[in-house]
Amino acid sequence: MEERDSDQDNKHNDDDHDDYEAVDIERLVRKEGRSNASSFLEREPLLRSRKNNTSQIAIVGANVYPIESLDYEIVENDLFKQDWRSRKKIQIFQYVVLKWTLACLIGLSTGLVAFFNNLAVENIAGFKLLMTSNLMLENRYIMAFVTFAGWNVALATCAAVLCAYIAPAAAGSGIPEVKAYLNGVDAHSILAPSTLFVKIFGSIFGVAAGFVVGKEGPMVHTGACIANLLGQGGSRKYHLTWKWLRYFKNDRDRRDLITCGAAAGVAAAFRAPVGGVLFALEEAASWWRSALLWRTFFTTAVVAVVLRSLMVFCQSGKCGLFGQGGLIMFDINSAVASYTAPDLVAVILLGIIGGIFGSLYNYLVDKVLRIYSIINERGPAYKVLLVISISLLTSCCAYGLPWFTGCVPCPAGLEEQCPTVGRSGNYKNFQCQPGHYNDLASLFLNTNDDAIRNLFSSRDAHEFHLSSLSLFFGAMFCLGIITYGIAIPSGLFIPVILAGASYGRVVGSILGSISDLDIGLFALLGAASFLGGTMRMTVSLCVILLELTNNLLMLPLVMLVLLISKTVADSFNKGVYDQIVKMKGLPYLEAHAEPYMRQLVAGDVVSGPLITFSGVEKVGNILHYLETTGHHGFPVIDEPPFTAAPELCGLVLRSHLLVLLKGKRFTKQKVLSGSDLLRRFHAYDFAKAGSGKGLKLEDLDIKQEEMDMYVDLHPITNTSPYTVIETMSLAKAAVLFREVGLRHLCVVPKTPGRPPIVGILTRHDFMAEHILGLYPDMKPQKHV
Amino acid sequence: MEERDSDQDNKHNDDDHDDYEAVDIERLVRKEGRSNASSFLEREPLLRSRKNNTSQIAIVGANVYPIESLDYEIVENDLFKQDWRSRKKIQIFQYVVLKWTLACLIGLSTGLVAFFNNLAVENIAGFKLLMTSNLMLENRYIMAFVTFAGWNVALATCAAVLCAYIAPAAAGSGIPEVKAYLNGVDAHSILAPSTLFVKIFGSIFGVAAGFVVGKEGPMVHTGACIANLLGQGGSRKYHLTWKWLRYFKNDRDRRDLITCGAAAGVAAAFRAPVGGVLFALEEAASWWRSALLWRTFFTTAVVAVVLRSLMVFCQSGKCGLFGQGGLIMFDINSAVASYTAPDLVAVILLGIIGGIFGSLYNYLVDKVLRIYSIINERGPAYKVLLVISISLLTSCCAYGLPWFTGCVPCPAGLEEQCPTVGRSGNYKNFQCQPGHYNDLASLFLNTNDDAIRNLFSSRDAHEFHLSSLSLFFGAMFCLGIITYGIAIPSGLFIPVILAGASYGRVVGSILGSISDLDIGLFALLGAASFLGGTMRMTVSLCVILLELTNNLLMLPLVMLVLLISKTVADSFNKGVYDQIVKMKGLPYLEAHAEPYMRQLVAGDVVSGPLITFSGVEKVGNILHYLETTGHHGFPVIDEPPFTAAPELCGLVLRSHLLVLLKGKRFTKQKVLSGSDLLRRFHAYDFAKAGSGKGLKLEDLDIKQEEMDMYVDLHPITNTSPYTVIETMSLAKAAVLFREVGLRHLCVVPKTPGRPPIVGILTRHDFMAEHILGLYPDMKPQKHV
Repeated sequence: MEERDSDQDNKHNDDDHDDYEAVDIERLVRKEGRSNASSFLEREPLLRSRKNNTSQIAIVGANVYPIESLDYEIVENDLFKQDWRSRKKIQIFQYVVLKWTLACLIGLSTGLVAFFNNLAVENIAGFKLLMTSNLMLENRYIMAFVTFAGWNVALATCAAVLCAYIAPAAAGSGIPEVKAYLNGVDAHSILAPSTLFVKIFGSIFGVAAGFVVGKEGPMVHTGACIANLLGQGGSRKYHLTWKWLRYFKNDRDRRDLITCGAAAGVAAAFRAPVGGVLFALEEAASWWRSALLWRTFFTTAVVAVVLRSLMVFCQSGKCGLFGQGGLIMFDINSAVASYTAPDLVAVILLGIIGGIFGSLYNYLVDKVLRIYSIINERGPAYKVLLVISISLLTSCCAYGLPWFTGCVPCPAGLEEQCPTVGRSGNYKNFQCQPGHYNDLASLFLNTNDDAIRNLFSSRDAHEFHLSSLSLFFGAMFCLGIITYGIAIPSGLFIPVILAGASYGRVVGSILGSISDLDIGLFALLGAASFLGGTMRMTVSLCVILLELTNNLLMLPLVMLVLLISKTVADSFNKGVYDQIVKMKGLPYLEAHAEPYMRQLVAGDVVSGPLITFSGVEKVGNILHYLETTGHHGFPVIDEPPFTAAPELCGLVLRSHLLVLLKGKRFTKQKVLSGSDLLRRFHAYDFAKAGSGKGLKLEDLDIKQEEMDMYVDLHPITNTSPYTVIETMSLAKAAVLFREVGLRHLCVVPKTPGRPPIVGILTRHDFMAEHILGLYPDMKPQKHV
Repeated sequence: MEERDSDQDNKHNDDDHDDYEAVDIERLVRKEGRSNASSFLEREPLLRSRKNNTSQIAIVGANVYPIESLDYEIVENDLFKQDWRSRKKIQIFQYVVLKWTLACLIGLSTGLVAFFNNLAVENIAGFKLLMTSNLMLENRYIMAFVTFAGWNVALATCAAVLCAYIAPAAAGSGIPEVKAYLNGVDAHSILAPSTLFVKIFGSIFGVAAGFVVGKEGPMVHTGACIANLLGQGGSRKYHLTWKWLRYFKNDRDRRDLITCGAAAGVAAAFRAPVGGVLFALEEAASWWRSALLWRTFFTTAVVAVVLRSLMVFCQSGKCGLFGQGGLIMFDINSAVASYTAPDLVAVILLGIIGGIFGSLYNYLVDKVLRIYSIINERGPAYKVLLVISISLLTSCCAYGLPWFTGCVPCPAGLEEQCPTVGRSGNYKNFQCQPGHYNDLASLFLNTNDDAIRNLFSSRDAHEFHLSSLSLFFGAMFCLGIITYGIAIPSGLFIPVILAGASYGRVVGSILGSISDLDIGLFALLGAASFLGGTMRMTVSLCVILLELTNNLLMLPLVMLVLLISKTVADSFNKGVYDQIVKMKGLPYLEAHAEPYMRQLVAGDVVSGPLITFSGVEKVGNILHYLETTGHHGFPVIDEPPFTAAPELCGLVLRSHLLVLLKGKRFTKQKVLSGSDLLRRFHAYDFAKAGSGKGLKLEDLDIKQEEMDMYVDLHPITNTSPYTVIETMSLAKAAVLFREVGLRHLCVVPKTPGRPPIVGILTRHDFMAEHILGLYPDMKPQKHV
């Protein structure tokens, strides 16, 4: 093993024994310009171009992407213990109150933002569609198209400019990044206030511009951003420095808040509070405990109450064009939920189709994202241009395709006005004569929410022609794929539901003779199958769909279709979010250990050089290693004369060292000065500041004469780091690392008489790229 | 520390460094008679009488209760590695197919059992009630009572005899035991086939006997038993020895199956597939992964489909008295779900009342259980007598109380026949003249399911008098408390729903003037509040209630009431299941570490004498320690001449040692014979047999001359046991132990030059009783 290590020393120069380090990365960001470094997607080709040299991928990845691991472990150092012992009952009470207050605030804010978002979209899009349809009524077809496309391009440009110039991290769905954050990977500025701002307004403009995108993914990201903002522990800039807030100055509590935020986002987007909790549990969170279930549930309950009250307020007509459509709730209560054997065959067929389409969709999204990343890499202007061209394409489709279908006479005995003239509605007149409507225009020239409601409708099986539905499915499938990845906030749920519901209706029309199921139910099952095929969630999707449609009687059918489509799709590729996480190079830790890890031991993947500090260390030494390495954790070794033989004292964090050095409580002699430090410092001084706000190396001002002085590291040394013996199977070490939520895992020697620590394992060391780079002859097996 | 250890050596004679050992306990069971030792409840007074000597509680508990820890850790020994490397693709495929087949079978069986249960209950209870009501119609009131009470006593006696003489473990709800099992504690015969048999039939007789008990808890236990039976990996007795089945011969895969079983049980009891999954997740399971979510979901989907098809079959009238009532589904769709501020006040009030009643209920259940355990301890005959007396009391209440209320004239314009004469129905005539009905009799002289349906009914706000409802609430509250704990399978859901719904209706009647909410909705919210107050679940209860009532629009109100009642009740005491788990002395590991654990280190709680084996050990030595200790794991130390200095090789399990000794591959000299053993044995030889079926010490037949021979322990030594350094904070060790799901945790020394292992931590060492016994001056703090 020693030989191997020395072979690799050149490769593993300073990225080993630690994870992707923020310090190095921040320099990189400053050097390369912000917008360029903080969007991951555009760096992808760089990663790919070097892929031949497998062993460097992880390293390249580590230096290129501004990612930082999160510290979920409780740092049990002397300061913590002192603070712990002195903790009073009132503080515990304050903490509990604050915890629930924050959960409530997250729910409240997310609910308000979601409502504002819907209100804005409905009004902008409604105004645009009304203008277009009025012009068409006057037979000014070209003018109508110009207006329609002009509005779309203008709105799209707004969204793209915001996204490209202010917060590139706001592009896309955001769910993969939130998922990675909750797994312990903080991607740079992913939850920053600027991202939140762009996500909200970019999403409004993007959805109003008629893109085939949803607001659901962005809502999840928005919820997480809000939670992160509230969990910052106050802000010195805005003089929000209440003492209470500091309880949340750690990654552990922030993680819980962000889980609540993600759940609130889904709950707000779909008005599905239980679905939101389950989404957070099944898809977003990597660690979960019962207490969190309860808090998440409370947050989503607040969201539900807020949304309900605001919608009641709007029923009096004070909200402009905001109708019932704003917050989707597709009421297909009328559908009868009895089914027979032929129906089950139809459902199984739908599930299989959904699985195949879903995996194809994921495959194509991946390919398109890789192409887009080449374009996006060239600069913000190219991003905006790409958005404008996709917008024009979408406008052409939406306005052009309805010309290819004929007119349908209005059904008799409708309560609703048909065709809808002079207001937004479901029967679009388009080019037809009075008394007729264009079925395809009713789908295309509507908001996405209204289009879904039309597709789920069970009023009339012949409301939409088979050809129109097929055309609409094709358009949605393709537009959905090419729209995801452009520089606007774009959710995947709505495009998938649109495409799924339309082929569900197609299948329903074809099988109408053998199955008695309602055509609206077929649309719902189609949407479920396609969602299952792309996102690969089960329980949460099922509950979201049930809450959306408010009909529990079709539960077994929805379950069945989801199970089949997920099974079919899983045999081809991974879920779309996992795929994006992987493509962005975010080091996501899976819940299970990979089979090849059983053939290795922990000592096989650690590699030098390991930098350790002495219990009482020279200031100059510390500064030197802080400057020259990017490591975030350093083992502390107690040595003679303080102990009989060298022994592992614990682990000290870079951020804590910076605070300690800033405090300048140095001693001239190599003596234990811990008790003095314990009086001078308080545990909260070492609390983790919000992202980017912590002390930096440049903030230190160490004089030359202080370089030769000593500082006692014991008070800030975590004396209980998790350790594994070097002969521990790597698979078991990975399970420990993931289950306990670690950032550093110390590897200790098995045989006596060697230095007390062999190395440190970090997230990076468990990544397939790293391990397979070291041992290229190992084959990744499929896990069962 | 050394001094402390020696002080305690006498106390910790042979229970230390290991968990509660099945071997010792089985002897105890044989000595004391089976029925006496395998029911935990009855041993409670013994435990209490010794409580003064705090440090012995755990030990007493350990020897008295037949409990065994489960091995969830993968034993990575040489045999496993050899097997792992040789694993073929077809085997992985077989494993996956088997996994899903078993999940399907569990769903199928649980669905069938649940249906059979309901069919039997509905027919028996229906027949009984019909006979009684026919006698009343002829004014033979005393004869009617004798018939009613006679039937009840007869059925109750059947249930009690089954329970007391055949499987005492089948008494009670079963949810606490399943919860403990999924936490890693296997209580003796808790999932045995005899328990399954008694659970099914005892539950049928018990519910049909008119006790205030439900079939929901028993269904969960039944589901878990079915899963355990299917996961036994075949049976040599019945010649089911398919090779495939052996893949499931380990605690890890069995745990997953039993989780599926528990979910299937809830799904079957309430026809709530999503609720079942969430119940398993929130209440039952201690470890959870995404893959399991999916499998559980599949199982409950199968249950839903099975139940639906059987109910469709019954609609044609082939199932006797089995009506819609069998599988509860309370349709209160008609209720309008709009609410205003005063309604919210009413809901908050209900939540608070529910919290207070709920915690009071838990308190009283605990007290009553302690009294009953004294009676039950005396023997099976006393158990049966107790059941008979409670049955008589229940009959008196059900038949006597309706006499105290007046008659209500039948409402006009009903579709239903009123009063119901000569058949089971909702308007019981009782003693009233024609055209009138007795409202209290409509609640009492019905099956529990029909009573709940009546309470949830929103037909007429004045259907039930306030006084009748209050009387009914009082009776249900008291009968529920005194019925749980007698020797019949008894669920807690139904009594709690009955009591909750009745006070909900009372509150609704009183607040009728200020709140516009439907009276049926009040009953639902009352049931929710009482459930929240006793069981302290949130999301799963919410979903179960929504699936029961098939109305999603009241979701926010149900959420609110659950949150409030749980919060209020949590400030008084623990949830009812946690309370029972604790009372039964099951060593349940909480998900969080207790605060006082932060003040201790791992080395503080381990205590000697530690028994270790050498890498190549003398057969006689092994046999001696297997005989004289109850330990289940022994550290293996590699010593010179095989290594330069003593070092920890790993951990060997008792069950594996027994198999190895049975194989008799001994050597005369102290040499490494591992490669020979690897050829002779196969990993499957060491697979864990079903409970009680493994090799026992008595099965070995070691001759005297073999005693001085050697055996190489390396092939069966788990070379990757999890370890902590002795100075690791106990809190962190506890987190590791719980999160990774361990049975043994090795404590290694910090300083060099000492033996390579200090001790072993087991579940027992993390129990509050043990730690506070060692350090009586530590105060358990409330965890936040």
